[in-house]
Amino acid sequence: MGRVVVDVMPKPEILDPQGKAVAGALPRLGFGQFTSVRQGKRFELEVDGPVTQEVLDAAAEAAATVLSNPVIEDVVRVADSEADAAGTIASQGLA
Amino acid sequence: MGRVVVDVMPKPEILDPQGKAVAGALPRLGFGQFTSVRQGKRFELEVDGPVTQEVLDAAAEAAATVLSNPVIEDVVRVADSEADAAGTIASQGLA
Repeated sequence: MGRVVVDVMPKPEILDPQGKAVAGALPRLGFGQFTSVRQGKRFELEVDGPVTQEVLDAAAEAAATVLSNPVIEDVVRVADSEADAAGTIASQGLA
Repeated sequence: MGRVVVDVMPKPEILDPQGKAVAGALPRLGFGQFTSVRQGKRFELEVDGPVTQEVLDAAAEAAATVLSNPVIEDVVRVADSEADAAGTIASQGLA
């Protein structure tokens, strides 16, 4: 069973009140190093069978037409969740 | 200027009405290959300067204490956004 990850973020020119609220809260809670926060959405789509190029293409089309509002959001990635683990803290055994 | 990506997903045992709604809509719109959808959150935290291990550790702590509700959500990744591009369709020049 494969899984495709789709990430959607608000466009840079769009106000992001949720991200702004988090950005305001972080310094008060001891995380002063983060200068800006944007909040978007992550979707995990499961398919029976492996994640083929056709599945990725279908996911990219679904991302552009169903999972995001192209007026205010950008699809920033469509990826097999296997590749997704690369470079994470978890994959380095730290969390 | 560095950027850390934090992904938060609802725990598997938690109902996810947004994901369920998307999963119900996809087959009607021609995307019958996706059997299940979960919807979570993606945060992009910006820092002045490079993404060091200290920055990643602070982001992991912020993810666990501020960006997620540990009762119902799991932090699924904390990663430098440079590593984030690996394996995406965009990085393969397809989108």
